[in-house]
Amino acid sequence: MTKNRLEAFSDGVLAIIITIMVLELKVPHGTEIKDLAPLYPYFVSYVLSFIYLGIYWNNHHHMMHTVKHISGGILWANMHLLFWLSLIPFTTGWMAENHFAPLTLTLYGIDLLMAAIAYFILQTMILKLHGSESMLKKAIGNDLKGKASPVLYVSAIVLSYFDISQWAAGGIYVFVALMWLIPDKRIEKVIYGNKI
Amino acid sequence: MTKNRLEAFSDGVLAIIITIMVLELKVPHGTEIKDLAPLYPYFVSYVLSFIYLGIYWNNHHHMMHTVKHISGGILWANMHLLFWLSLIPFTTGWMAENHFAPLTLTLYGIDLLMAAIAYFILQTMILKLHGSESMLKKAIGNDLKGKASPVLYVSAIVLSYFDISQWAAGGIYVFVALMWLIPDKRIEKVIYGNKI
Amino acid sequence: MTKNRLEAFSDGVLAIIITIMVLELKVPHGTEIKDLAPLYPYFVSYVLSFIYLGIYWNNHHHMMHTVKHISGGILWANMHLLFWLSLIPFTTGWMAENHFAPLTLTLYGIDLLMAAIAYFILQTMILKLHGSESMLKKAIGNDLKGKASPVLYVSAIVLSYFDISQWAAGGIYVFVALMWLIPDKRIEKVIYGNKI
Amino acid sequence: MTKNRLEAFSDGVLAIIITIMVLELKVPHGTEIKDLAPLYPYFVSYVLSFIYLGIYWNNHHHMMHTVKHISGGILWANMHLLFWLSLIPFTTGWMAENHFAPLTLTLYGIDLLMAAIAYFILQTMILKLHGSESMLKKAIGNDLKGKASPVLYVSAIVLSYFDISQWAAGGIYVFVALMWLIPDKRIEKVIYGNKI
Repeated sequence: MTKNRLEAFSDGVLAIIITIMVLELKVPHGTEIKDLAPLYPYFVSYVLSFIYLGIYWNNHHHMMHTVKHISGGILWANMHLLFWLSLIPFTTGWMAENHFAPLTLTLYGIDLLMAAIAYFILQTMILKLHGSESMLKKAIGNDLKGKASPVLYVSAIVLSYFDISQWAAGGIYVFVALMWLIPDKRIEKVIYGNKI
Repeated sequence: MTKNRLEAFSDGVLAIIITIMVLELKVPHGTEIKDLAPLYPYFVSYVLSFIYLGIYWNNHHHMMHTVKHISGGILWANMHLLFWLSLIPFTTGWMAENHFAPLTLTLYGIDLLMAAIAYFILQTMILKLHGSESMLKKAIGNDLKGKASPVLYVSAIVLSYFDISQWAAGGIYVFVALMWLIPDKRIEKVIYGNKI
Repeated sequence: MTKNRLEAFSDGVLAIIITIMVLELKVPHGTEIKDLAPLYPYFVSYVLSFIYLGIYWNNHHHMMHTVKHISGGILWANMHLLFWLSLIPFTTGWMAENHFAPLTLTLYGIDLLMAAIAYFILQTMILKLHGSESMLKKAIGNDLKGKASPVLYVSAIVLSYFDISQWAAGGIYVFVALMWLIPDKRIEKVIYGNKI
Repeated sequence: MTKNRLEAFSDGVLAIIITIMVLELKVPHGTEIKDLAPLYPYFVSYVLSFIYLGIYWNNHHHMMHTVKHISGGILWANMHLLFWLSLIPFTTGWMAENHFAPLTLTLYGIDLLMAAIAYFILQTMILKLHGSESMLKKAIGNDLKGKASPVLYVSAIVLSYFDISQWAAGGIYVFVALMWLIPDKRIEKVIYGNKI
């Protein structure tokens, strides 16, 4: 019961965050293809953030699937994660508004990093409550992606902040998203069993 | 459980998309009937998109009703569908803002076409996971409407892009919506049985 | 299952409609009490529409509580109800923006009337599917409030449209809201039994 | 069933309220760190209100966990609570827009006070329906935090309204939030039993 409501609330918040970003795509007044052109940074960054939020929803969903108990601490760890995700429409908008200027990429990366840390805290608290023999522990395994992501975010933050290469920073964000998009057969096997 | 959350998240996103479109209906400052007149393209296109999103919710609902298992791929196919639907407030707004100018009708059609393709991919993945003897397979049958819709969208895209007839293009969008609105007794029979 | 999702979707849409109205309360730039004064029509009409949407949620909730089967027609009748309710933020905003000018009260009344008709259609379809011995039939009884409301809305529409008395029209909207707010012990008894 | 829908609706409204506040964080046009600086009052007040809404969601969740029956009165008491919470984005926005000017802190406190009163009414109605031997009664205990909060809000309202010290008023809001944030092992024990 408790778990259901945690999921329902998180679903609600994630659904709203993902949809609110569309409001940054302001309707242009002209009727030519060229009038749509200035929207490309908004569209590109919308796609990227949509995928990131989709990844978080997906992972959150899989993680919660394995959860049996909830504690007050887990409720707040989840709220903490939603907080950083709720800032994504803002960081995305700043990035789009300024055509991926270095510092806007830095802030975007910081937000992603904070969300990754918040996710890690949530996962750790759930693991602690469920023990090392839990389904989640097995599903995560060595958690390579979970460990690689923050390292990659930090690289992108450094690259963009010191204005070394904004393209490399942007490329890292795209790479991390793709890395998570590729289905992880191993996890699915543990969760869905032999049904797939 | 997994299925429930997929439905809950999709419901949330669809509910927000459908309601966000109302924000395009800007409150006029005058207090006469004539002050409401300039809103007619916004109102007409709101009604049309509301019906389209209602159709998607309805069909999504019916399809999920027959689903037994979910895979990671299905989660992403669903997210992909939600992506194209999330752009409907934008394409609707552009169409309304420019009084159904040809190119705005083209873009609206492209969005509907992409959503239809995304829906088809989702349906195909579910069918693949459930087999040809599944309830969904029986409910869909030859899927005439599902096959006719993309063809009609492409016609409307061509008609509007080459500026042949924007009325015809608009008429096709209305026609497809009405085609889906008319209840499909056949599908309901398979799903609800003899209760109706 | 089907019923649950209908409820979840309606809850989502109603929750968003009710919350979107707050966006009309624009933050004033001054810091004195007098800077808040111009907001009073927005606040008053927000309270009124909040109560109306609360009433619809409450009644919808009670009605669905008694429902056993859902048909495709009921799904669309529900969507039709949500459509008229989704326009409430717009009609409320127009009314507030123009300090309850006669015609804005007329439009507000028309929207309420259309929602009441949509609710009546939905209720009739549910009754038809469940029979005259159903729990809903007993709960509704002679449905005095349901019959009185449209008559009162029409009175308010006439009074405001012909500019007879906008105060009387506004008063009727307040009266109808209060009429529904007063708890209906009779219905609760049928639904909750002796628990209350 | 009834309870589930009350929770779902409340979750929806709270999720939207919490996310709508992000829209006050307007994307700045410059690309320097100094362009972000003017956003600090918006960010600080967003964090504070996010925590307050998180607390309400958490407490609401815990309270509902113990509830067995729902009455029509409880539905409206819940709606009343949601009403005052729905004004938080507005009162937060006014506070941020005017850099925590005294009167904006007063209004923020009044809103928090009204929400606390609404929560108390809801809790009292639930207790009345469930009796003094109920799980909720045991979980609440002497309800020290619940009694201290309104007193603290009133202090902050007085301090800010009479322009005695806006810092003290702001400090009180932060203190109350922290007081609720610290996990209450006692309540968790009653609710989750020995699992934690």
